[in-house]
Amino acid sequence: MSGPEFSQMKVGVLGGGQLGRMLALGGIPLGMEFRFLDPNAGAGAGQTGNLVVGAYDGTGALERFAEGLDVATFEFENVPDSSAAFLQERLPVFPSPEALRVSQDRLREKTFFRSLGADVPLFAGVTSAEELVEAEKDLGLPFVLKTRRFGYDGKGQSVLRSSEDVKRACSRPLEGPMIAEAHVRFDRELSVVAVRSRSGETAVYPLIENHHRAGILRLSIAPAPDISQALQRQAEKLALMTLEALDYVGVLAIELFQQGNRRLVNEMAPRVHNSGHWTIEGAVCSQFENHVRAICGLALGSTHAHMSSAMVNIVGHLPDVEALLRLPGAHVHLYGKAPRPGRKIGHITVLAPDHASLVEKIAQVQALLPQGHASS
Amino acid sequence: MSGPEFSQMKVGVLGGGQLGRMLALGGIPLGMEFRFLDPNAGAGAGQTGNLVVGAYDGTGALERFAEGLDVATFEFENVPDSSAAFLQERLPVFPSPEALRVSQDRLREKTFFRSLGADVPLFAGVTSAEELVEAEKDLGLPFVLKTRRFGYDGKGQSVLRSSEDVKRACSRPLEGPMIAEAHVRFDRELSVVAVRSRSGETAVYPLIENHHRAGILRLSIAPAPDISQALQRQAEKLALMTLEALDYVGVLAIELFQQGNRRLVNEMAPRVHNSGHWTIEGAVCSQFENHVRAICGLALGSTHAHMSSAMVNIVGHLPDVEALLRLPGAHVHLYGKAPRPGRKIGHITVLAPDHASLVEKIAQVQALLPQGHASS
Repeated sequence: MSGPEFSQMKVGVLGGGQLGRMLALGGIPLGMEFRFLDPNAGAGAGQTGNLVVGAYDGTGALERFAEGLDVATFEFENVPDSSAAFLQERLPVFPSPEALRVSQDRLREKTFFRSLGADVPLFAGVTSAEELVEAEKDLGLPFVLKTRRFGYDGKGQSVLRSSEDVKRACSRPLEGPMIAEAHVRFDRELSVVAVRSRSGETAVYPLIENHHRAGILRLSIAPAPDISQALQRQAEKLALMTLEALDYVGVLAIELFQQGNRRLVNEMAPRVHNSGHWTIEGAVCSQFENHVRAICGLALGSTHAHMSSAMVNIVGHLPDVEALLRLPGAHVHLYGKAPRPGRKIGHITVLAPDHASLVEKIAQVQALLPQGHASS
Repeated sequence: MSGPEFSQMKVGVLGGGQLGRMLALGGIPLGMEFRFLDPNAGAGAGQTGNLVVGAYDGTGALERFAEGLDVATFEFENVPDSSAAFLQERLPVFPSPEALRVSQDRLREKTFFRSLGADVPLFAGVTSAEELVEAEKDLGLPFVLKTRRFGYDGKGQSVLRSSEDVKRACSRPLEGPMIAEAHVRFDRELSVVAVRSRSGETAVYPLIENHHRAGILRLSIAPAPDISQALQRQAEKLALMTLEALDYVGVLAIELFQQGNRRLVNEMAPRVHNSGHWTIEGAVCSQFENHVRAICGLALGSTHAHMSSAMVNIVGHLPDVEALLRLPGAHVHLYGKAPRPGRKIGHITVLAPDHASLVEKIAQVQALLPQGHASS
């Protein structure tokens, strides 16, 4: 694919999945040109830019990817350190590899948020059977055992509910350096999506309410209902503190547990986030456009929400797309990915002027999705 | 560029300019895959699909373009007859070459609208100096002399204001078969954008008010202010009659002159239209998404307008894009085209809850555009 006659910026994205694709759909209207690096020749982002097919840590592929780019960014946080370093020597890379390092490691991440003064669930690093037994004493039962790195959508984690469970876990070799976290009972899960540009300008979207099943996000509602101004402000403050502390550039998402009046930080994602997909139609400027604005050093767009939005993920099986398109006002997004159990292959966004009619629209959408096996 | 893992439909577009690009930006989220045919290797739509570089009437290029497509469409109306026929033998083509033929020829087009019972300016076919003199008698002065084919943005037309002008025109060879049209004094220019799907479903966007300078569209406002329900209904009726009469599939635009209580049809465009670009942000479903829904046989999306929208074209010179992005709520679209006098290289859309604040926002945008030489 040859370049356009005129391009404002050449943006590289490590990873060619739906996030890369939606970044390009947000940036192409601004005159930007996109290139992706992905090992999969059928990566869906290939529809929206030049796809370099190769391993993320393959020097040859990385060189072809980096050639002539103005800026590079990531679709996911588990970027190999060597690749991040390789790119950073050649061009501006946002968010910075330093910011990535915090979120790549759950122990470092929790420690970071605690250092900011944010509430986090009790946690402890676990590298041996002894530390696992120690964790049971410190955190109580049940607790969650997670790999420190490379976890997403509930993968690489288990809940230890009894001393039997702990003993069984002790008898097996650990999957690597682990973190034990107190099992938090919470009223609901929230997330906050925020953005900071190269010039230090910041913006925060309204708080989002998230619903998971089998560890996979299924539904997000924004602005989250029943959020006090005080809570929105607290979340904004947390997001802005995080952005500043990491000298962060781009979109960042922070997942929270709401426990009565208390908010605990669960984790952060140093990228555009599934819970922010509603912003494509539901906000003045989407998280995708704002991410590319931020990393290209442009002014940020407004994070104002038009009305109430809901985003429903399509997981595992392709629904009856024609039936979905017949729903008035449903915005259907398919990612160009083959259906596979547990795989996010698309989403649907609906908007409504009030929460009651939003709930009705959500039900209409959900009725058209294949019925949920827990693993679907 | 290889295809995605999964694609709902493979859509081909003859032409790889901004309209093709925005069609793809509207269809990719639905899981569609796009291919373009364009003689220009730097065509901006190449960012959003596979670009086959070749002449529109080159059989080899057309074959590579058509291979494996589910459906083909056009970015412009002046498709060579032979190319339309070549494609139609191989796959579904919308709008049909029959529908194109009406709009490719201004004389046939005016005759068609008159046959529908629509008001059109007085007109006459001109193929000789004698017929030109005849036209002066029938239409009066001034009148407009246009080529029957291949005109856009005011090209291929001149206003004859005096018998001297007519004599001068008679002394030169005609540029081909021409049409003479009465010079219409009008209060304002309007357009109506409508869509019809393969199953016969139809939808119409609110009427749009258009402002031209030097023959080039500069500003569209939608819904057009001060439009009675009766007028909106009349325009809808005209659009629906036209769609039905042509057994039309896809988006169609009709340009109108408003003269007091009277509306005259100026011309139609059998495609997505510049005056409909506001629908990307301003309507529930954009003209681009609706065009690809229509030609792919899917249900149409809602044509409801969120609030008042204005679209300002960027013509000729690149403005200060960063300043535009700093305007709250301005949606900037750059087409990947090199600036050149008289060339449409982008547009800006702004939305407002009422006409007064829309006018204010239009002024803010216009203040940031390079000052208008008539030719800019």
